Amino acid sequence: MNVRLRGRARHHRTVEFEARRNEVILIEQRLLPHEFRLVATRDYRETARAIGDMVVRGAPAIAGAAAYGLAQGSRAFRGNALDRFAAHVEKVFQTIRAARPTAVDPVNAMLEVRAAMRAGSTVADQQERALAAARAFADESVAQCEAIGWHGLPLIKEGMRLLTHCNAGWLACVDVGTATAPLYAAQAAGRRFHVFCDETRPRCQGASLTAWELAQQGVSHQVIADNAAGHLMQRGEIDLVIVGSDRVLGRTGEIANKIGTYTKAVLAHRHHLPFYVAIPLSTIDWELRSGFDIPIEERGEDEVLGAWGALPATGSEVRSPKFEVRNAPSRPVPPSSERASFRRAYVRIANPTSGARNPGFDVTPAELITGIITPRGIFRPRDLWRRRRQLGGPAA
Amino acid sequence: MNVRLRGRARHHRTVEFEARRNEVILIEQRLLPHEFRLVATRDYRETARAIGDMVVRGAPAIAGAAAYGLAQGSRAFRGNALDRFAAHVEKVFQTIRAARPTAVDPVNAMLEVRAAMRAGSTVADQQERALAAARAFADESVAQCEAIGWHGLPLIKEGMRLLTHCNAGWLACVDVGTATAPLYAAQAAGRRFHVFCDETRPRCQGASLTAWELAQQGVSHQVIADNAAGHLMQRGEIDLVIVGSDRVLGRTGEIANKIGTYTKAVLAHRHHLPFYVAIPLSTIDWELRSGFDIPIEERGEDEVLGAWGALPATGSEVRSPKFEVRNAPSRPVPPSSERASFRRAYVRIANPTSGARNPGFDVTPAELITGIITPRGIFRPRDLWRRRRQLGGPAA
Repeated sequence: MNVRLRGRARHHRTVEFEARRNEVILIEQRLLPHEFRLVATRDYRETARAIGDMVVRGAPAIAGAAAYGLAQGSRAFRGNALDRFAAHVEKVFQTIRAARPTAVDPVNAMLEVRAAMRAGSTVADQQERALAAARAFADESVAQCEAIGWHGLPLIKEGMRLLTHCNAGWLACVDVGTATAPLYAAQAAGRRFHVFCDETRPRCQGASLTAWELAQQGVSHQVIADNAAGHLMQRGEIDLVIVGSDRVLGRTGEIANKIGTYTKAVLAHRHHLPFYVAIPLSTIDWELRSGFDIPIEERGEDEVLGAWGALPATGSEVRSPKFEVRNAPSRPVPPSSERASFRRAYVRIANPTSGARNPGFDVTPAELITGIITPRGIFRPRDLWRRRRQLGGPAA
Repeated sequence: MNVRLRGRARHHRTVEFEARRNEVILIEQRLLPHEFRLVATRDYRETARAIGDMVVRGAPAIAGAAAYGLAQGSRAFRGNALDRFAAHVEKVFQTIRAARPTAVDPVNAMLEVRAAMRAGSTVADQQERALAAARAFADESVAQCEAIGWHGLPLIKEGMRLLTHCNAGWLACVDVGTATAPLYAAQAAGRRFHVFCDETRPRCQGASLTAWELAQQGVSHQVIADNAAGHLMQRGEIDLVIVGSDRVLGRTGEIANKIGTYTKAVLAHRHHLPFYVAIPLSTIDWELRSGFDIPIEERGEDEVLGAWGALPATGSEVRSPKFEVRNAPSRPVPPSSERASFRRAYVRIANPTSGARNPGFDVTPAELITGIITPRGIFRPRDLWRRRRQLGGPAA
């Protein structure tokens, strides 16, 4: 995507690979929206740490990082002994897998790379195939997002006002994004539209990441409190809702996504507004038989009881972000003179003696969803199972 | 209400009057939930400033403060000339009215005090009647809240899980509160229940004020993100919703309340959960004919783009709140040794180049409201007009 820094547009994928230096290049997402910085991981252990510490987040993005991380670790091996190489690759695989133990996408991505490697007859051959497979995986991930964009494009009409929730943009993917893909396709087609970004408490990915991303792209947008969407719909100021998803049940059409998604779907239904969910094929779960079986992560109370944000920097703290950045970028972009001056801080909002509940996700039933936008077309949620072969699903 | 400080329970109304010193005593609400402090306004100008600067907020609370402020100003007059006294009282009236120019409750409260004064034949007599009328107004305000409590009590069953939004508690009233009144009545009746407090972005009155109030009262509660209520309802973890209101239309049964209320009503309706609105009689608007005629205040963007909270104090900043408290308390409670150590700060959450929409209120239609809890009983919203005489409404 085009990241505009002082007026110069440069294209950066969220996850890239620098073959000569054997580095994975990532956008340091924990600094956003206050500072844009690329970091380079110098070995697979650093890549695993970047995944675990959420330098990079979003299922398609960490899958891409894991694929490149496996290639990076493989390429660092010195020697010709295939058995020792295989043991090394296994160690790399397990290290990266352990970084986000509940995520399935990085594992599937690495399995794909490892399968491609096995066709090689020498260590050097396998190393070469690893990188090619990781690149192919990343490119396929981007191609799926682009296909979501083309299929979703007809939904975005001139002058529309859209609502989105959380971040399902290119920051969560290798590039392009899922929920944002139709928007960028519409923008490329010259259509004008406006996006309301739910701030998405408690972690505020809408206010920070989606708003930043749309600003970089030059898309007209405003942040709203999660409380405001119902009022805007009631007053006729929203025409369409589009969100991403962490898991779509192929058997029922239910979708799990960031907490608050269900509420927006209920509101859209009441106001007869279309509600779309955009996903790559890897998001479809063909096994589970009920949304109530999806485990809902209960996260820490502090997220609800306060908020993270930027304080204006003062005195000696100028230009010194106070949270840890593990790796000094070996290719620092942007140059330090372009860095924002801020200090990241957590403020306690709630009564200090009160506790909180913090479910991280919720489940939206099929009846509230107008359509699922996939790289293979738009499907009614209850049609997924019937058309599972077209969507890469199981035979029975 | 009982404010517990170091284990000692003391009863403070949100708005009180100290006759010997001619002072209005207010809870400094801008310091909550991080510090409890009473401030005393030494003349009517300070009282007007305290209303304008939101030391005290909530329609019934500022009405009580205005009534006492008019008595305070009247009592400060020295002399016996009735015409000069009347001019002075008019000046006091206008000064306090101007503090929150769009609020109607302070004006109605002061009109009531002024009408009572007119029965007096001397300045001293009128001054005495002013104080008696202000006290009567405050007591009547408390009595209405208590009556809301008794009428709402049967709704709160043993073991219930309730949801409330924003703050309609005793901090918003002279005492007891509106939405909280049935809860405190149920607590007094020995019933156990649990309250989920919507944090109520963007100003977070639920996380800060309601959670603080419930903690002081010893009511079991947890703060939730506004996004979480729908999920909790879906999983069967909420039994009843109770909120306050800024304006109830007597002709239609529509209610205006803090942004996000409408969303909770839509969710409650979908889940067949009772949704109640608790109000004093002064909240009923007998004039307006449609909720769409209620002006919805569009507030500043900064509320949505960031958040106010407490930073842990460091170094020299310990014990020094960094936002202005106009009046050093002439009766400082609690003593300074009990003060919390914090520094209030605003953090920017959103992308710095993005804007926001910030509607402050929304309108909930009658069809989503199970009942309106008033000091005269519980009414179906569409019955208000038919039973208007019982509710102090107009004849026709």
